[in-house]
Amino acid sequence: MGVRLNSQDDLYDAVSEMLYVALLHYPVYNKNGDVVTTAIANMDIHDIARTVKTYEADGFYIVNPIEEQRSLAQEIISHWREGYGAGYNAFRRAAFESIKLEESLRAIIDDIIARTRRKPKTIVTGANFTGNVLTFAELKDFLKNGDGTYLLIFGTGFGISDELINASDFKLEPIKGASGYNHLSVRSAVAIILDRIMSV
Amino acid sequence: MGVRLNSQDDLYDAVSEMLYVALLHYPVYNKNGDVVTTAIANMDIHDIARTVKTYEADGFYIVNPIEEQRSLAQEIISHWREGYGAGYNAFRRAAFESIKLEESLRAIIDDIIARTRRKPKTIVTGANFTGNVLTFAELKDFLKNGDGTYLLIFGTGFGISDELINASDFKLEPIKGASGYNHLSVRSAVAIILDRIMSV
Repeated sequence: MGVRLNSQDDLYDAVSEMLYVALLHYPVYNKNGDVVTTAIANMDIHDIARTVKTYEADGFYIVNPIEEQRSLAQEIISHWREGYGAGYNAFRRAAFESIKLEESLRAIIDDIIARTRRKPKTIVTGANFTGNVLTFAELKDFLKNGDGTYLLIFGTGFGISDELINASDFKLEPIKGASGYNHLSVRSAVAIILDRIMSV
Repeated sequence: MGVRLNSQDDLYDAVSEMLYVALLHYPVYNKNGDVVTTAIANMDIHDIARTVKTYEADGFYIVNPIEEQRSLAQEIISHWREGYGAGYNAFRRAAFESIKLEESLRAIIDDIIARTRRKPKTIVTGANFTGNVLTFAELKDFLKNGDGTYLLIFGTGFGISDELINASDFKLEPIKGASGYNHLSVRSAVAIILDRIMSV
């Protein structure tokens, strides 16, 4: 009420909506290198929602093209957001508020444009990227400076399809631990990456 | 063979065994503040083993005083270490190699002393510690300098009992995200903390 805005654009610029997280169940590889749709795992919903809430990312999208999968996930989410779980665990309810289910990456991007009037830059994650990658430090700077709106995409199964990787704006630097081994769960990868790019 | 050691102590000093991770199912609080034993969760075994392997911690102990719980966990671990899972997923097998089941924290400490001839300093973790805490930077320095052997203890349920917290050598600084919200899963907390103290 007290803020005088010159245009609709000023309104949207005043909104701090910067980083969205997506968990992709299609198109991803299976163990044999085929592009498949994976099932939504209950633990992914819980762990990633809690991490997203802790680091104040602006939303957590779950992508699955299969309607039955989205319905099942919606039941779980509603349980914790409005059902018995909401009263049982208020912290879980708060974490679940930011979750949205979508049928495709395209639908997420449209939703972010509707929310922010900005087209997000897409950043894919993976354990084996080499060459021209976006570093954690660079992404942290972009976010700190309010420089753009980003959609950070995590794959399930054996990783995001090459076609989608090649169509994305950025590939994020992989997590390197202390060893050559880098087979973290997607839940752990989301936690480590949000900590690296959003911790204060 | 080629190294000449002056004593048994030199042998153990030459072994790089520095940081062990423990996941505690007793004594921890439930939602009502009672001290209880929680059940071992399959996903905790998988995620934490993979994180421990990625950051090359020296071992992952799972503590549960209930024999049936340890037997069930042992079946899961054997499946991935020697059974069908070992052939199916060699990365999972590698991660599972470092897991040991114990009935108490005391048994872990004895095991570490047997392995290293050093008594580990215990470090408890928790979301709400205040006051005199060990910072991530301090612990990272200890590990980098080879200064001691540490057992980093994570609780399940609603956190480690006060009695055990008070008996430990250190309380680790809590993870602060970007918000006041800090209700991460234990799987995510292990990932973030090992990344903060052991990443290169």
